[in-house]
Amino acid sequence: MTPAIRAELAALGNDLTPAMLGGTQKLMASMSRGMAAATKVTRDIAYGPDQRHRLDLFTCDGLNGAPVFVFVHGGGFVMGDKHTEGSPFYSNMGDFAARHGFVGVTMTYRLAPAHKFPSGPDDLALLVDWLRAEVAAHGGDPAKIILSGQSAGATHVAGYLAHRREHCAGIAGACLMSGIYDTVTAEPNAFAEAYYGEDRRGWGPATCLPGLLATPVPLQFSIAEFDPDDFHRQAAQLVAQWSATKGRLPELHYLSGHNHLSPALSIGSDMREVERMVAGFVRRVAG
Amino acid sequence: MTPAIRAELAALGNDLTPAMLGGTQKLMASMSRGMAAATKVTRDIAYGPDQRHRLDLFTCDGLNGAPVFVFVHGGGFVMGDKHTEGSPFYSNMGDFAARHGFVGVTMTYRLAPAHKFPSGPDDLALLVDWLRAEVAAHGGDPAKIILSGQSAGATHVAGYLAHRREHCAGIAGACLMSGIYDTVTAEPNAFAEAYYGEDRRGWGPATCLPGLLATPVPLQFSIAEFDPDDFHRQAAQLVAQWSATKGRLPELHYLSGHNHLSPALSIGSDMREVERMVAGFVRRVAG
Repeated sequence: MTPAIRAELAALGNDLTPAMLGGTQKLMASMSRGMAAATKVTRDIAYGPDQRHRLDLFTCDGLNGAPVFVFVHGGGFVMGDKHTEGSPFYSNMGDFAARHGFVGVTMTYRLAPAHKFPSGPDDLALLVDWLRAEVAAHGGDPAKIILSGQSAGATHVAGYLAHRREHCAGIAGACLMSGIYDTVTAEPNAFAEAYYGEDRRGWGPATCLPGLLATPVPLQFSIAEFDPDDFHRQAAQLVAQWSATKGRLPELHYLSGHNHLSPALSIGSDMREVERMVAGFVRRVAG
Repeated sequence: MTPAIRAELAALGNDLTPAMLGGTQKLMASMSRGMAAATKVTRDIAYGPDQRHRLDLFTCDGLNGAPVFVFVHGGGFVMGDKHTEGSPFYSNMGDFAARHGFVGVTMTYRLAPAHKFPSGPDDLALLVDWLRAEVAAHGGDPAKIILSGQSAGATHVAGYLAHRREHCAGIAGACLMSGIYDTVTAEPNAFAEAYYGEDRRGWGPATCLPGLLATPVPLQFSIAEFDPDDFHRQAAQLVAQWSATKGRLPELHYLSGHNHLSPALSIGSDMREVERMVAGFVRRVAG
């Protein structure tokens, strides 16, 4: 990352203000190279009955038995999309997959407050069912699925791994960027209440942390230098519990100069550190 | 890192066995590009009265007011060198500095068991005194000193920051790779006993952690995936205390696929992730 971009991101602050979210999107969109000419996209394939059960599929010619890279967007459980007309995000994540020889999938999911926990794990299970049935026809290997997500998307992936453990066959790895994993110690806020409910007594069973500690799926975590305080506390909690349980650190990458949004948004730009990190992980776990 | 190199490093294991240490040195030496033609080195300059108070100085033409990058080797407090004839290590660290437009310094220091704590902080203070008096004549800025170290070298840098706080003017940053910082919780072993003494009651005052939490010097930590368990526990302890004190994570980089030795040994090879990490930090803190 150049000192100028670092300074621009730092100036936006750590908190998830409209100015920070909008400013980051604008800055990162200006750096996007756009989709590769060779990337083919099929949009809005239904993977379930709800209007939000939709995926975009990214491929390139010649894929056969390729790893399948899924990206789950964030948005505080209550908003967000896989694709916004006129924006490179998050088609950049599907394009990333195709450029590296993977099948790419971006997806939407049902939103809170209408849909509450465990709607995220349930929607991931539907998505994985669709992949098992269909992705081979698109050149993907359903035994090499890598689930990635950012913020609420990371929490949904973690929730699927933790609360749908019997469903996880074929998940080769998960890449979890700036998520909240432990509802027991997370800061209460309106977004979490919309998804987990206002009664915090319901939050304990929803925590992902014991399930993440127990899953055999390889996990890559990341935290951004300019993530809000609560995400840093969650990462510290993850390190403490992981180390106490396993005697080793989790694979937790500290992304210098990045904020809550910029890691996923940097993929497809000339800021290549996050792309290298994720692509290296996919190659490592998918063999 | 390529899958083949990762597999070779993984096969050497996490523990600091002779086979792991020798195998890593051999593998990494085979990948070294050697010193750049433009790098000029002056060896064995005395910075103090002991035979081990020696530094090698690396420059290139045209330096003026450049950051000064110091590397302190490891070796369990009892061995190690700044340069071994026929080996690229650790002249690679001085060459790295010169290639990036910094003044590079590699140093030796007095060894345990003959010299015990706080000989490390004392030797670093002598080295910094020498830099303050002499480095401007070699194109360096004594107000932009970056101290780096690996293993026992990281512990000595941490010890200087923690136990010679009044001496730290001009230290712009420190890059600490796979060190032991908290003698209170560290695993007792023969190397630590050689330096800190056999009576563990003396170890408490030698701990660096409270001093690291208090220093205003920017710190970049790293831990290797294949570091031994005790280094992982130390990093977890660092995260816990840092987060509890500051409410944020330390800048702790998790180096996937690396072992205890390979990060510093990778600098000057085509495995560029550690070089990018360190160079980015130096540029950030030295302005």
